[in-house]
Amino acid sequence: MTSRLDCEVLDRDDPLSSLRKEFVLADELIYLDGNSLGPVSAAVKRRVNEVIDSEWATGLVRSWNSAGWMAAPTALGDRVAPLIGARPGEVLVADTLTFLIAKLLGAALHLRPDRHVIITDEANFHSDLYIIEAVAKRAGRPIEVQVLNRKDIPAALNDDVALVELTHVDFRTGEMLDLFGITKAVHDVGALMFWDFAHSAGAVPLDVTGANVDFAAGCGYKYLNAGPGAPAFAYIRREWQSQMENPLPGWLGHVRPFDFELDYEPATGMQAFVTSSPSIIAMAALDGSLETWEKTTMNEVRTKSLALTDLFIELVEQRVPGAFEIVTPREHAKRGSQVALRHDHAYAIVQALIERNVIGDFRDPDICRFGFTPLYLRYVDVYDAVDVLVDVMNNKAYLDERFSVRNPVT
Amino acid sequence: MTSRLDCEVLDRDDPLSSLRKEFVLADELIYLDGNSLGPVSAAVKRRVNEVIDSEWATGLVRSWNSAGWMAAPTALGDRVAPLIGARPGEVLVADTLTFLIAKLLGAALHLRPDRHVIITDEANFHSDLYIIEAVAKRAGRPIEVQVLNRKDIPAALNDDVALVELTHVDFRTGEMLDLFGITKAVHDVGALMFWDFAHSAGAVPLDVTGANVDFAAGCGYKYLNAGPGAPAFAYIRREWQSQMENPLPGWLGHVRPFDFELDYEPATGMQAFVTSSPSIIAMAALDGSLETWEKTTMNEVRTKSLALTDLFIELVEQRVPGAFEIVTPREHAKRGSQVALRHDHAYAIVQALIERNVIGDFRDPDICRFGFTPLYLRYVDVYDAVDVLVDVMNNKAYLDERFSVRNPVT
Repeated sequence: MTSRLDCEVLDRDDPLSSLRKEFVLADELIYLDGNSLGPVSAAVKRRVNEVIDSEWATGLVRSWNSAGWMAAPTALGDRVAPLIGARPGEVLVADTLTFLIAKLLGAALHLRPDRHVIITDEANFHSDLYIIEAVAKRAGRPIEVQVLNRKDIPAALNDDVALVELTHVDFRTGEMLDLFGITKAVHDVGALMFWDFAHSAGAVPLDVTGANVDFAAGCGYKYLNAGPGAPAFAYIRREWQSQMENPLPGWLGHVRPFDFELDYEPATGMQAFVTSSPSIIAMAALDGSLETWEKTTMNEVRTKSLALTDLFIELVEQRVPGAFEIVTPREHAKRGSQVALRHDHAYAIVQALIERNVIGDFRDPDICRFGFTPLYLRYVDVYDAVDVLVDVMNNKAYLDERFSVRNPVT
Repeated sequence: MTSRLDCEVLDRDDPLSSLRKEFVLADELIYLDGNSLGPVSAAVKRRVNEVIDSEWATGLVRSWNSAGWMAAPTALGDRVAPLIGARPGEVLVADTLTFLIAKLLGAALHLRPDRHVIITDEANFHSDLYIIEAVAKRAGRPIEVQVLNRKDIPAALNDDVALVELTHVDFRTGEMLDLFGITKAVHDVGALMFWDFAHSAGAVPLDVTGANVDFAAGCGYKYLNAGPGAPAFAYIRREWQSQMENPLPGWLGHVRPFDFELDYEPATGMQAFVTSSPSIIAMAALDGSLETWEKTTMNEVRTKSLALTDLFIELVEQRVPGAFEIVTPREHAKRGSQVALRHDHAYAIVQALIERNVIGDFRDPDICRFGFTPLYLRYVDVYDAVDVLVDVMNNKAYLDERFSVRNPVT
């Protein structure tokens, strides 16, 4: 069995160990919820205050030019691009994930005018399902949304299908889908592939170029650590950009925004998918958080992520055998950067852990979810978290009646 | 003629004079562009850093509950409400102005299913025009958008008209339209009225309740001083809320967001128009900037605003007579909180002023635009700005060839 001393040795030899000090994390806390909201880094705080004190306070309106605010959506997009394997000019940072899905999906349907089906996964995140239905309803032609069990998707692919939208890493179970295989199967029937990378970007290596992905979007506040409700990112494969029309256009996507023309004429490339003036303070936080990402590679991150999740699974199985169903796949190729444990008392177990300074979260109806984020988590954190979990399980701390009523957010 | 000494006396007696010190403004700068981007206040900086250091860094994901992040869109909405004369529960802070127009307009068209015309103003801001066209195209039925000269709008009102969308204060000329009269005329033909308050909120007193306004939206980064690309606000008259469906729905607008249900069931009230997790850092800036607004009233602000714009017009007319066409109406009831001067060399004049630390802006093709923001502008600032303008005009500083090529943002 792996000992705490073994974990200390692993931490000593960890090539990422120097990055932890960039984050603000209380010593007494073990934070296994960076897959929901990443922590603050010193660079985020520095960049936000630089923007407030210098670019905004001193530069004032002049900073739209002089501080590069106008170009922030595409400039930051180019810095996110390496995290998903995209090429320069293919990624935009703006808005929120749901708005970007609405824009890309609305535009993409026009690329397959003779097809009438969108396929998605019934285990998809709910904002995806709601916005897909909403966009389909306003597509200008009848669109059927098929919300399927993911195992039934291959059989449902045919030449009626315009587009498939899937979340690449399941937000509940942590299962990672086959980026290359599914994209190819979708292309084989002439449909387009749209991946939601909310739980993938910064969690697992991605290669949208190699996999021929058409569209993708993801969020800035989970593994990217850009703060609550941070701007999201969107990817449109270069070849599609000139054929797509932003269904939610705004003046900053106009080719000549300051000519104030009556008719909308889109800018070239991803700029056409910018709608409004970006929130520069929110963009500054992402600007700062990407600095940490630029000190490592996704392969390095992935190696440690798998080691952390392997260790967690091993220790849970050894120390509280049979207590949980381990929902997350053991197979590395099918695992994101989280571990989900199923238990009838999942909600109360998570509350008992939080009370003991181990922060994970609960996902309805019976999942304890733990995110493993290699930039700042140590092997000893995994060990200590399991120590606390063992205590909670052995002492049935989850039966405390304070946990019988659910708080709306956990 | 008003002297600089007169202005000093006006400043000494100004009931708003104590508010200037809340803002970070360089002594050598005269900032007449707060109608484009308001300046930083100490409260903004404090709130943003409190959110980063305490709510985010320490509270982490728990702050969605414990720090009230989930409720921020409606809680901040209720604090914006008094600025537009709305009732509690009628205002939401979220997204950007363009997205909010898309949501409200898309939803509003279903309230008039038998009508097929949207009327707007050819002098409207361009994002309004682009998003109105885009929403009309995806309305699910043929919608005709009539982009009219505003003087032709009354004659165009008839029972084909579903909705009229107008910007209340013209972003170029500063002309303020008749909120009560136009809303009534639109209602008289059974149509709905949607006001864009981008240049009105914090600029002029507004009474959406008294005027029976159906819908409105406005922005946070102009007179409200919440920072570049700040969140916007939307108003839906209480009576309409239960009849409107958010066309860009997301999980935070669901009645039970953490039950992760397959089908979208909207929350009640304005919460249904929340799509995504709000950018909490951007919301914190607005939270801070509203503190200053809560130390005054719109009537007090309006009194000083008219005095400042009257003074500017008077001094320009007296000291550089005939140099400019004064585009902004003299009549108080038709004036926002800016003054627009027309000149063939408008672009170069604005550049020459900026070089001399008087910040105004240029609007294509021939408008010098100056915003007068009573929270932090002094009467002496108006006097000194005109001094600089007189110097620029008398010395023809605008003929400097450096100003012959236009910078994209001015």
